[in-house]
Amino acid sequence: MRFISETSFDGVREQLFVLGEIPGALWTPEGAAGARPLIVMGHGGGQHKKAPAIVGLARRFVTECDFAVVVADVPNHGDRPVVENYHRIATENQARMEAGEEPAPLIAAFQALVARQTVPEWRTVLDSVQRLPHVGAGPVGYWGVSLGCGLGVPFVAAEARVRAAVLGLGGALASGADASCITVPVEFLVQWDDERVPRDQSLALFDAFASADKTLHAHPGRHGDMPAFELDSTLRFFSRHLT
Amino acid sequence: MRFISETSFDGVREQLFVLGEIPGALWTPEGAAGARPLIVMGHGGGQHKKAPAIVGLARRFVTECDFAVVVADVPNHGDRPVVENYHRIATENQARMEAGEEPAPLIAAFQALVARQTVPEWRTVLDSVQRLPHVGAGPVGYWGVSLGCGLGVPFVAAEARVRAAVLGLGGALASGADASCITVPVEFLVQWDDERVPRDQSLALFDAFASADKTLHAHPGRHGDMPAFELDSTLRFFSRHLT
Repeated sequence: MRFISETSFDGVREQLFVLGEIPGALWTPEGAAGARPLIVMGHGGGQHKKAPAIVGLARRFVTECDFAVVVADVPNHGDRPVVENYHRIATENQARMEAGEEPAPLIAAFQALVARQTVPEWRTVLDSVQRLPHVGAGPVGYWGVSLGCGLGVPFVAAEARVRAAVLGLGGALASGADASCITVPVEFLVQWDDERVPRDQSLALFDAFASADKTLHAHPGRHGDMPAFELDSTLRFFSRHLT
Repeated sequence: MRFISETSFDGVREQLFVLGEIPGALWTPEGAAGARPLIVMGHGGGQHKKAPAIVGLARRFVTECDFAVVVADVPNHGDRPVVENYHRIATENQARMEAGEEPAPLIAAFQALVARQTVPEWRTVLDSVQRLPHVGAGPVGYWGVSLGCGLGVPFVAAEARVRAAVLGLGGALASGADASCITVPVEFLVQWDDERVPRDQSLALFDAFASADKTLHAHPGRHGDMPAFELDSTLRFFSRHLT
């Protein structure tokens, strides 16, 4: 794990790193020492580790909960090179959706393909940041919606260190089978008029989680319209389960 | 409005009253003076104004939010006499459900009947308590699930003073038409495995609310299994909308 930059602002220390081929960002409280809860975040499609929504929520985890947060660029996103195969499939999918094809099965197949790479990558990132003295081996949570859900469900299913997860804007087509292996508490977010994920697919994914403690939060509006107050609930959810 | 008892305990003043034929309970902060937000609560079927779940949540509104809370016994419940007509229908419905009939349409028809009486009753109660100096004409919220939803939806639809409502464990069959007249913020609670309200009926009621700001919270489990942490969300919801 090689650190390539470090800055501090308003109580939050930001370290950008590269681990093998994986660029990532780590946020911790300024002056932090010792183990603390860690949130692994997954960014959305077309976004990256420093997208405003990711940085905004990460800073809240640090300043309001005293947590650490880590996020890696997904292949073909952020500071990573174009992957020819992914790029070709994404371009083809775009054309097929514009031609009127249902987006959900295309998105699901693509996310399942990428997850085969990101699950082991994120586990390696988790190994490395938990060895840092200001992160340590505390309880781990996962947060990710949209692409961050499609890649997050198989990650949470595979990774026993994750004790609680906020997921959403994703459907059972992409990750229903992995969801049935998840037993940790889940808060699952649905946009009631999501133009990308059919409502019955969302509800089927919520159904599929094997967790006894799971909650669905639905709001009206399209894929990108989640209200800001939902993030308050996210912070309380992780505070309840990781501290 | 005639007060028949008054007690104080742990910062909460409880006044039991009778208004015409309606017995009710009013909770306010000890020593309160001046207008404050008021929550009208509707109790569940077979319960009453002092059921433990009602008193417990009412005390939290008072101690944690500095609100006033009022609840009236529904006809045929609590300190009210048996109403022959309601009693007969309830007994018949019980027999029909035991014989295997679908409960949802029976419950819906019965709640619609009772609501014709409770909507004007609750409006009278609201008129009277808002004239008290320690309640005043502040913003009003409504909380009610199960029977409290079946009676609450027509009440909220009819009563312009209500600015926000928490409703749930109810279906569109009972109150879908009234729901389409509601435009205030709504937090709507669903038990995912509700044996009394079919899931599609719950989702259809959520759909029916005309509110731009509405949120559905679903938890696994049966009609009576709502987790206690959901009440924390209720308190925050009303704090956000009434203060």
